[in-house]
Amino acid sequence: MKKDFIIVLAPDSFKESMTAKEACEAMERGIKKVNKNISCIHVPMADGGEGTMQSLIDATEGKIYSLKVIGPLGNEVEAKYGILGKGQVAVIEMASASGLELVPIEMRNPLITTTFGTGQLIKACLSHGIKRLIIGIGGSATNDGGAGVIQALGGRLLDEEGKELGFGGGELGKLSNIDLSSFDSRLKDIEVQVACDVTNPLCGDYGAANVFGQQKGATKDMIITLDNNLKHYAQIIKEKLGKDVLDLPGAGAAGGLGAGLMAFLDGNLRRGIDIVVEYTGLEEKVRNADMVWTGEGSIDFQTQYGKTPIGVATVAKKYNKPVIALAGRIGEGIEVLYEKGIDAIFSIMQGVTSLEEALAKGQDNIERTSENIIRFMNIPF
Amino acid sequence: MKKDFIIVLAPDSFKESMTAKEACEAMERGIKKVNKNISCIHVPMADGGEGTMQSLIDATEGKIYSLKVIGPLGNEVEAKYGILGKGQVAVIEMASASGLELVPIEMRNPLITTTFGTGQLIKACLSHGIKRLIIGIGGSATNDGGAGVIQALGGRLLDEEGKELGFGGGELGKLSNIDLSSFDSRLKDIEVQVACDVTNPLCGDYGAANVFGQQKGATKDMIITLDNNLKHYAQIIKEKLGKDVLDLPGAGAAGGLGAGLMAFLDGNLRRGIDIVVEYTGLEEKVRNADMVWTGEGSIDFQTQYGKTPIGVATVAKKYNKPVIALAGRIGEGIEVLYEKGIDAIFSIMQGVTSLEEALAKGQDNIERTSENIIRFMNIPF
Repeated sequence: MKKDFIIVLAPDSFKESMTAKEACEAMERGIKKVNKNISCIHVPMADGGEGTMQSLIDATEGKIYSLKVIGPLGNEVEAKYGILGKGQVAVIEMASASGLELVPIEMRNPLITTTFGTGQLIKACLSHGIKRLIIGIGGSATNDGGAGVIQALGGRLLDEEGKELGFGGGELGKLSNIDLSSFDSRLKDIEVQVACDVTNPLCGDYGAANVFGQQKGATKDMIITLDNNLKHYAQIIKEKLGKDVLDLPGAGAAGGLGAGLMAFLDGNLRRGIDIVVEYTGLEEKVRNADMVWTGEGSIDFQTQYGKTPIGVATVAKKYNKPVIALAGRIGEGIEVLYEKGIDAIFSIMQGVTSLEEALAKGQDNIERTSENIIRFMNIPF
Repeated sequence: MKKDFIIVLAPDSFKESMTAKEACEAMERGIKKVNKNISCIHVPMADGGEGTMQSLIDATEGKIYSLKVIGPLGNEVEAKYGILGKGQVAVIEMASASGLELVPIEMRNPLITTTFGTGQLIKACLSHGIKRLIIGIGGSATNDGGAGVIQALGGRLLDEEGKELGFGGGELGKLSNIDLSSFDSRLKDIEVQVACDVTNPLCGDYGAANVFGQQKGATKDMIITLDNNLKHYAQIIKEKLGKDVLDLPGAGAAGGLGAGLMAFLDGNLRRGIDIVVEYTGLEEKVRNADMVWTGEGSIDFQTQYGKTPIGVATVAKKYNKPVIALAGRIGEGIEVLYEKGIDAIFSIMQGVTSLEEALAKGQDNIERTSENIIRFMNIPF
């Protein structure tokens, strides 16, 4: 190994065990145990899902803020948003304000759940004078087409009698007019990027209600209502705003929030991993490195579909850099990952353990596995 | 990696999961998936404990025979012995005929358990015209000083009235005379090597009865009797055979079988791993190799005390060959193993599993880990 060997450490979080930043630190501890001369560049990663805000903040040394907002059921919840290191870019995860995990199973009902809190988070970000907003939209409890977001930002969604709609996907059928005269004007100067890995249209068999409604608590009858309401919503948007979002890929993401963000905020939908790669500056760091390490709690054939390890490998292969991945669980079908640029995959497990113990010892296990990988690299062949 | 790269595969068995030979085969499958040009030399290993016979037979393409013998409690049991590939050397494990696992817990009683069956195994080996006998003596149910072995081979152990002693450590106190006139004469031409990793003397605080009696079912009173009887046994051996085995290191191994084999069969006690290294021809194979792989079900700080991975590493380091180890479980204190010649240690586990599943999937896990190690080696740095 040459003397100024540089390794980029770009893992995702290991869910329920450690953040991506902690994974970076554990890797470096193991590496440095063997060779103090290796330089480790930390690039905590994410793929647009849970942990994306944390990783972008960690990667850019930004700051996370807390805010009380209206949760999916209308009650108050504590949500978070982040301002990236240079202060120009904000990042939020809709699940923080309007996520399914905020709603007890027996109370899940997308007829009434709202994205209002997500709109409040956006409003809070605007007050920081940002130029760009990144929104991760996984894990929603809602099917309101982003109506709550619009309402929180000052948009008025009115029924035939000019009365404001209430919260939830059940109300959209009454939408008759849209009044944006009080819509937050700061949004005009903001570029909105939506981290979105699904391509579902707003309505129909592959639409928001039919595909994701059930897991949000909708019955079959509710799904029919929700689907019809979203269709009506798209129709009114087309009439009033001149934008046709009905069949746009990703419009059906997050209960139609995808459509709402495209229609009202000129949101640009991108793959989550691509956004994270850009804002962490991964490519520049990889270009100057000798090797790239990635990893995630679980790696299997699904990893190829836009998960962090493949996103990292894709960047690394542009510059012919070797890539290894660490994982707590290695599932079936990983052969495809070798073809897509991951050179080798190692498990961090050290024996038979309970899930509980495995999660608790995650950082130790990464450290030890990293140590042995460097020990192995040190062998002169 | 050069074109005619040679890897010696020298794992121990992975207990309850696979034999050492099966571990070799799984390693090779993983290796060949990545690089068909690597030559794999299989050297299934053991350390003198359970699996030693199987490994020596596998390593030399020898043959295993079954035999009905008298078990530790006097009832019939099915035991095994092996004749190594060239037919000159036999190998037995005393536990196969006289082991603790053959006795239900509630019936464990070293006053009555006998090594007679082990003697019968030796006799069977002699009928193959061997020149050398290797005896692994771990896991005994007995405390009879090897008296049963002597009796099975035609030696007569007599009381004051000239009557044969019965079975078990409880009888030795009556020993008054030894008649070897009918002792199997073929033993004179045989070299006996005893695989023994303990250095306990026959009697006293560190002797067979005091250290190992309890786990064989002896009460405190029994232990006093057994200890006194072994002392008396050594005294008579000294008087009649002119050999003083009382304080020889290893005399207290396997309930005094160590002493019996030294006194009556001129047994030569050696570390198990050293015997296996010799008879598998490991050193010659390692000398011509580019790399050595070893492994065992569990690796931790205890591995340094004569276990296979360290035995293999010691040989490899004589020739400066890199050594890696695979394990199902990696426990605490492995740093000492790096100092003793193992360059890197990898776990074969692929995630959180039950012990049952881990044992069942052992070969798949070795294969996949081996594949990724070679994938990693293939990276051009």
